[in-house]
Amino acid sequence: MKWTKTHIFTMKEAPGDAEIPSHKLMVRGGYIQKLAPGLYTYGNLALRAIRKFEAIIREELDKRGCTEILMPMVHPQALWEETNRWTEMGAGLLKFKNRNDQWFCLGATHEEAVTDYARHDIKSYRDLPRNLYQIQTKYRDEIRPRFGLMRGREFSMKDAYSFDIDQEGALKAYESMYQAYQAIFDRLGLQYRIVQADAGNIGGSQTHEFQLLADAGEDALLVSDGSDFAANIEVCPAIDPAPHVSSEAEKPVEEFATPGQKTIANLAKFTGVGERDLVKTLFFSTNEGQDPKNKDLKAIAVLLRGSDELNPVKLKNVLGMTNPPQMLTDEEVKQVSKAWPGSCGPVGLEIPVYMDNGVQGLKNYIVGANKDGFHLKNVNHGRDFKPAKIADLRMAREGDKDPNGKGFLKAYRGIEVGHVFYLGTKYSQKMNATYLSKDGKAMPIEMGCYGIGVTRTVQATIEQSHDADGIIWPKSIAPYHVHICVLDTNDDKVMGLSNSLEKELESMRLDVLVDDREERPGVKFKDADLLGMPVRVVIGKKGLDQNQVEVVNRKTKEVKKVAPDQVMGAIREVLG
Amino acid sequence: MKWTKTHIFTMKEAPGDAEIPSHKLMVRGGYIQKLAPGLYTYGNLALRAIRKFEAIIREELDKRGCTEILMPMVHPQALWEETNRWTEMGAGLLKFKNRNDQWFCLGATHEEAVTDYARHDIKSYRDLPRNLYQIQTKYRDEIRPRFGLMRGREFSMKDAYSFDIDQEGALKAYESMYQAYQAIFDRLGLQYRIVQADAGNIGGSQTHEFQLLADAGEDALLVSDGSDFAANIEVCPAIDPAPHVSSEAEKPVEEFATPGQKTIANLAKFTGVGERDLVKTLFFSTNEGQDPKNKDLKAIAVLLRGSDELNPVKLKNVLGMTNPPQMLTDEEVKQVSKAWPGSCGPVGLEIPVYMDNGVQGLKNYIVGANKDGFHLKNVNHGRDFKPAKIADLRMAREGDKDPNGKGFLKAYRGIEVGHVFYLGTKYSQKMNATYLSKDGKAMPIEMGCYGIGVTRTVQATIEQSHDADGIIWPKSIAPYHVHICVLDTNDDKVMGLSNSLEKELESMRLDVLVDDREERPGVKFKDADLLGMPVRVVIGKKGLDQNQVEVVNRKTKEVKKVAPDQVMGAIREVLG
Repeated sequence: MKWTKTHIFTMKEAPGDAEIPSHKLMVRGGYIQKLAPGLYTYGNLALRAIRKFEAIIREELDKRGCTEILMPMVHPQALWEETNRWTEMGAGLLKFKNRNDQWFCLGATHEEAVTDYARHDIKSYRDLPRNLYQIQTKYRDEIRPRFGLMRGREFSMKDAYSFDIDQEGALKAYESMYQAYQAIFDRLGLQYRIVQADAGNIGGSQTHEFQLLADAGEDALLVSDGSDFAANIEVCPAIDPAPHVSSEAEKPVEEFATPGQKTIANLAKFTGVGERDLVKTLFFSTNEGQDPKNKDLKAIAVLLRGSDELNPVKLKNVLGMTNPPQMLTDEEVKQVSKAWPGSCGPVGLEIPVYMDNGVQGLKNYIVGANKDGFHLKNVNHGRDFKPAKIADLRMAREGDKDPNGKGFLKAYRGIEVGHVFYLGTKYSQKMNATYLSKDGKAMPIEMGCYGIGVTRTVQATIEQSHDADGIIWPKSIAPYHVHICVLDTNDDKVMGLSNSLEKELESMRLDVLVDDREERPGVKFKDADLLGMPVRVVIGKKGLDQNQVEVVNRKTKEVKKVAPDQVMGAIREVLG
Repeated sequence: MKWTKTHIFTMKEAPGDAEIPSHKLMVRGGYIQKLAPGLYTYGNLALRAIRKFEAIIREELDKRGCTEILMPMVHPQALWEETNRWTEMGAGLLKFKNRNDQWFCLGATHEEAVTDYARHDIKSYRDLPRNLYQIQTKYRDEIRPRFGLMRGREFSMKDAYSFDIDQEGALKAYESMYQAYQAIFDRLGLQYRIVQADAGNIGGSQTHEFQLLADAGEDALLVSDGSDFAANIEVCPAIDPAPHVSSEAEKPVEEFATPGQKTIANLAKFTGVGERDLVKTLFFSTNEGQDPKNKDLKAIAVLLRGSDELNPVKLKNVLGMTNPPQMLTDEEVKQVSKAWPGSCGPVGLEIPVYMDNGVQGLKNYIVGANKDGFHLKNVNHGRDFKPAKIADLRMAREGDKDPNGKGFLKAYRGIEVGHVFYLGTKYSQKMNATYLSKDGKAMPIEMGCYGIGVTRTVQATIEQSHDADGIIWPKSIAPYHVHICVLDTNDDKVMGLSNSLEKELESMRLDVLVDDREERPGVKFKDADLLGMPVRVVIGKKGLDQNQVEVVNRKTKEVKKVAPDQVMGAIREVLG
């Protein structure tokens, strides 16, 4: 393809709202152009990369017996009411009324739609197993879309759904998709980790995330240095590197004045006790209603060491809630504890107290007195208050113990590009998707669901694979494999060689972009680096006079000067 | 592909809401399944046909220098305000507020989005011409979606947009797309007509529709039997087959009583004058505001012969409106004419009167007296009232004269599958999409736009190509080329031949579906007919014992019994 015959535009500067390298590079290379926040037009180059990634996905899924379909993007309210997710999904689910005054939403995910599809067709155990997938536009009403395609409103996903007669079958399907995902991401040649994760409002008891490693990643991961353990911080068990247990005898509780000491840091300074030995009290509402202000708070308190951070996902899971609970406002705290935040504690509270494991080893600790400007010292659980539950509620952190007991955790940042869920019968039971078993009983279908962020992965690839000059595409999804810079477009010999090389490469099913613009060499080289095709070939009059063509490896920047009849060999060498 | 390894389900009965054959067959064959009115899931078989059609489109467009991109489905209000189409598009444009209280719409068409895209990149005459296209989901908020994919809410379109420096370039682009469309629809092997059409609220001065002929088509077409003239009835000039002109002398006007004579049919009977010589008066509001009830009616009257039907699109165009004008209510008519409908006429009206060409030849005709229960006879335009404009306002009909004067018009029904528009600078001027000309002036870009209904075409193909037993796919978009019915799935020899045939066909890039279910032959044959692949191959034990395999042409139903080593030849013969 000749540059002048297609639509490619590059920019020197990235727009102000581009914060991370991949976003900047995609905009500068004309890969994407913003229509509105979170809404991007994909230019031809981006589309070529996306289509190649889609082809990889299709190949790996079809190979494993999956069947592609395509479900609507717009769904009726009644469908989502069946699973109660019309409400549970919250404000991220974009809802609207049509001209006939009926409610619809834009599909943020398709469990309901696919379960409806399957329950019409699947009648008997003979119709199972099945794995149906689609590559479809999704919409999530992000409050603050950012990072280009990484957290957009409209984006493309591959979502697959497995249907089996029993758990054994469903877990086999899960395993098969897990392997498919490994094969898919391996073909990108990138660094990724498979981590344990939270199921969010998709549901399901077993779930893994596929995370491309990148500093700009929005997910925090913890990976063992001694075993294959890896988890999203949201679900990573928190185990102190060494036990932190006090052996003191219990002392009598004493109230003492702490005027103006409202933060743990201040209190530590004021009392001379380390943050790790102080105990902080947080308050939450466990009411999942739409408007908690008008209803019972169902308040709870949570105790953590002063040095620890609450993990809201762990708390959500301990409480069996769909979404993490809301923190109480200061006024609500006052109402529940009789004190303003900063002076609250567990002693005397009439609401359930959830205590983090980390507090368990402490003795004679300091907590708020539920009296403004006062704290209690020598407090002990069991004696002075009874926790409703003691559980792992804190965020794990680098240096914590590997839960397998084989080393310690290291922190990484990741971009979630894939997610596999074992769902069980969560959806099939609610939506009455059943099959007749061999002995004629109606049984709920066992399901799993499996997503890959198609457009996100393409950008994440750039986030992991770029340098100061631009993108470095892996061969598997590069928009073009070879980028020929023609330096003297008016020279017949130069254009002739370029044309014959283009033809020869295309006959080998390699995609070739020929920069045939009347531009200075420096402009062409800069654009070639920015756009990031794996191989650059430079053909100019000067070089040809010396029987030389340059072949440049975009990744290593290695330059080879070869005779025209050796160009093919040099290109093949770079592409491997 | 083995039937048992993919997801195909067929039904004996079509659902009650399926009115036309293609809709029934697509549902019965599991090609589509309804999620909600106008919203369908495409099964794997439908998706295969759609993808093949998309590939044909891409091939023909890429060949002609078009560049594929992909624009968002969700658009911000501000974009559509630039062209005033946020309002002009009416209720078919689905609008919604996001969680941040900002208005968006679902793209029903992408002129605004692509003009925005192009104005960012295109700066100079050197950047032109360009033709950008996408294959994207569209949404139109149909009040009454029907006919399956034919008039759905969510559907897939290919939309292309050309950008040129001047009208000459734009018309060349138009011509090139016209030819591309011919090539695309020729490859389906179907009967279609290219007709003159109305530009609707897309705008533009030159436009053609590509219409697949089918009885169930929603469009009425008129085609000359003597020239290449063909037009959508909406824009077809109406010319009487023979002049209908009176040579009477003008007589004095007389009022006469017509108690209870409110329709043209009644009046004709009452007066003994033929409908063709009576004149009827219709009333419209030309106020294009959102709520005409609260504003000035800007009423007009329209005169037609009693035997003729008004063409609202012609009236809209004569009035220079965006959408056809609304008829007045009975009360509004009374207010404007002093009489209830049925007794109204042009004489004495204080509003503009638009007169159809057909009335021009009449003399001494009868019209309402604007007095309830009375009419006037011997009325003559010019003398008794002055028309604001005399124009072609009636619906053309079969038997009318070819506007080229070379024969007469014949009526057809068509399904609009493609539409090309020359837009000029309608969008570029409003949206300030300019380029710098050679002499450094900022000039508005000349544009055209070009649509193909992708999913609609796939169904229209079936509407034109089916029989009582099912679908008859043309080879070019058949989900599978060959459908092998294996009659004895447990017989090694039978399965062996089927497997080797499947492999051989696939190595020749032919797609093969193998019905390996444990079902009776009758069930398999019925399903094969219903699903409609071009060739059916029947392999059974009985046949093989006689060294025979059946090869059936789906279209002609011709059956050939051939030896296994002649099957390939027989298949190739059918596929041509």
